[in-house]
Amino acid sequence: MSKQAPRCVTWPVGFRAAGGPCGIKPSGSPDLALVVADQPCAAAGMFTRTQMPGAPVIVSRKHIRKGRARAIVCNSGCSNVCTGGAGVRDAISMCRRVAQGIGVDPHEVLVCSTGVIGHRLPMDKIERGIDALLPALAAGPKADADAARAIMTTDLKPKTASTSVKIDGVTVRIGGMCKGSGMIAPNMATMLVFITTDADVSPAMLKLALKQACEVSFNRISVDLDTSTSDSLLLLASGCSGAPAITGKGKAFDAFAAALTEVCRDLAYQVIRDGEGATKVFRVSVKGARSKADAAKVGYTVVGSPLVKTAIHGGDPNWGRLVAATGRSGAKVVPARLRVAIGGIVVCDGGKPATLSAATQRKLVNAMKQSHIEILIDLGLGDAEDAWLGCDLSKEYVTINADYTT
Amino acid sequence: MSKQAPRCVTWPVGFRAAGGPCGIKPSGSPDLALVVADQPCAAAGMFTRTQMPGAPVIVSRKHIRKGRARAIVCNSGCSNVCTGGAGVRDAISMCRRVAQGIGVDPHEVLVCSTGVIGHRLPMDKIERGIDALLPALAAGPKADADAARAIMTTDLKPKTASTSVKIDGVTVRIGGMCKGSGMIAPNMATMLVFITTDADVSPAMLKLALKQACEVSFNRISVDLDTSTSDSLLLLASGCSGAPAITGKGKAFDAFAAALTEVCRDLAYQVIRDGEGATKVFRVSVKGARSKADAAKVGYTVVGSPLVKTAIHGGDPNWGRLVAATGRSGAKVVPARLRVAIGGIVVCDGGKPATLSAATQRKLVNAMKQSHIEILIDLGLGDAEDAWLGCDLSKEYVTINADYTT
Repeated sequence: MSKQAPRCVTWPVGFRAAGGPCGIKPSGSPDLALVVADQPCAAAGMFTRTQMPGAPVIVSRKHIRKGRARAIVCNSGCSNVCTGGAGVRDAISMCRRVAQGIGVDPHEVLVCSTGVIGHRLPMDKIERGIDALLPALAAGPKADADAARAIMTTDLKPKTASTSVKIDGVTVRIGGMCKGSGMIAPNMATMLVFITTDADVSPAMLKLALKQACEVSFNRISVDLDTSTSDSLLLLASGCSGAPAITGKGKAFDAFAAALTEVCRDLAYQVIRDGEGATKVFRVSVKGARSKADAAKVGYTVVGSPLVKTAIHGGDPNWGRLVAATGRSGAKVVPARLRVAIGGIVVCDGGKPATLSAATQRKLVNAMKQSHIEILIDLGLGDAEDAWLGCDLSKEYVTINADYTT
Repeated sequence: MSKQAPRCVTWPVGFRAAGGPCGIKPSGSPDLALVVADQPCAAAGMFTRTQMPGAPVIVSRKHIRKGRARAIVCNSGCSNVCTGGAGVRDAISMCRRVAQGIGVDPHEVLVCSTGVIGHRLPMDKIERGIDALLPALAAGPKADADAARAIMTTDLKPKTASTSVKIDGVTVRIGGMCKGSGMIAPNMATMLVFITTDADVSPAMLKLALKQACEVSFNRISVDLDTSTSDSLLLLASGCSGAPAITGKGKAFDAFAAALTEVCRDLAYQVIRDGEGATKVFRVSVKGARSKADAAKVGYTVVGSPLVKTAIHGGDPNWGRLVAATGRSGAKVVPARLRVAIGGIVVCDGGKPATLSAATQRKLVNAMKQSHIEILIDLGLGDAEDAWLGCDLSKEYVTINADYTT
């Protein structure tokens, strides 16, 4: 990751952004954001796999089909989910309003909404908001910060990341922002990620790079993340860097895909770190699985287990819960081959407790107190591996979600 | 259910029980229980499907294979899971000690342990405890209460149930006790259920009746219940009632199976009611699914959803979370056909919000405040249905599980 302050989506050349309040949130907090490219972009998107997709997902999925886009409009405070045909028309109206404002075709605009389910959007406020935001479109830290704040719901912090990579000697920038407090089942209408780059990448290769990056980042951070009603991960490539076009596999593609993955991993970590009520992050590295699918099952089950999450919260090196979650994951497990380590300390070997000296026991207790905890689960059956990120389950999570009113 | 006070496992003719402290729990609470039949019984059992079964599960599964048993011995405070071959030998020793005491073959004794994972049993305490309990074996409310208390871990209340049914004019009794605070992922080493009957049932028919009863009771109460390391559901039939033997399908079998199901449902409800930190129970009835499997997926996903559970806790009629969980369940869902009701009030119809009068809205808010909440999810796609029980997710759950020390 670039050490300089992340510049978010307008750091890559060819993009402007804006964000501000349009009156959806009763608090008056920012709730409308725009990301606009100065010229046509290649575009790729990944969306929720739910069978109850929100209206914006239905519309954006259609608009991005040709691999081209020019702008993203996003509101928070209301997800436009479970709103039927009228909701779809509202999402299209949002695209149309932006398209008129910047002089492009409505199909070149992607749309996202996040917030409570089952309510129509206040279209008058949104349309007035879009009209007011258009003149504010700009590149630079302020515009980026405004946009990143305007897409937040229960997030405590805006989430941005950026990196750069040389493509045939030319620097290409990638910047991104996202919202999401992605816990066990993510909040309301959950995770939105917008990434821009000035690399010149064909739509097909852009899609491939995004899929690869998503698989090891956003698809590896806790349960149900791929299945909320609004999850959208959008990537626009302006080509303004002047670097050679990437139109097929090879060294340039690999370099770009690696940089994109870095940005996605950075953002995904921020989502977990800002998980609802979270005080700790834990990484579950699964090794020795018979297959990649088995390794994923173990990681998915362990990071999603409420008993593991509460043990992490309590700082309790209760590895029996790691073993129990592994045993019920559906992956092939042979007790006598199982090895579990916490913070590098082997606590279970061959399916039995490891003998720990008093000093090692103290180290273990200390490892469990850290804000980042590393867990290794080695099935000892093969070569496949996977890694997942989770966060602890706290009373604050219950407070946030028991009191979130419709 | 019989209106008289449940008499638990010694109410059916031919059984005695005992329970008391043997010193495993540092608190000195009861932690050892015995259930003994006066003569050989037909026996059936259902066990956890985990790939990390505890030593007692391995031993009991083997001992019950012939469909015969004479006694159950159970300790709480230590689950004898992840203890390797030594743990299996300990479980066998428990059976042997009981067998010697009552003069039967060790293979006729079933064994269960519940508590923390990864520790060897204190066999000296257990063996002394068995020797001390044997003379206390008796029938009646005190023996039943002692046994039901001795198998508890985080349970707040002992759980017992009983019923009777006429088989060809002869009254047959069924009594049961269980432990378990079965939340999302059940605690440590979770649910144990012991049921006795004085019906005369062949091992094969006993197994069939138990399987049917379990499927609609213990297998329908919240996530992961079938996958802890120690779950065991054991049923002994003494045949002492004098009722005709049940050796095949027919009216007598159906009557017995229905009564057994009633006892299982009663105990399963008590598990949910006493779920860790639970303050409310909710039933999710799924209708209109294309298949039974689809109906089960929806019920399983909804009762396990942390967001649904926290909404129930907060008394928030946030049906968007019900819809979101339904959409990600993996069942076939068509938004325009979906109907959701809470407490009999339709809140979502055709995938869109139902219009509620102010009076109905008040009724809805009131329904969410009850300690039992009925939720209907009608997929509108077929005839298959299913029903699941869940409980709310409270801060107390986090407290219990974050502070449970290894």
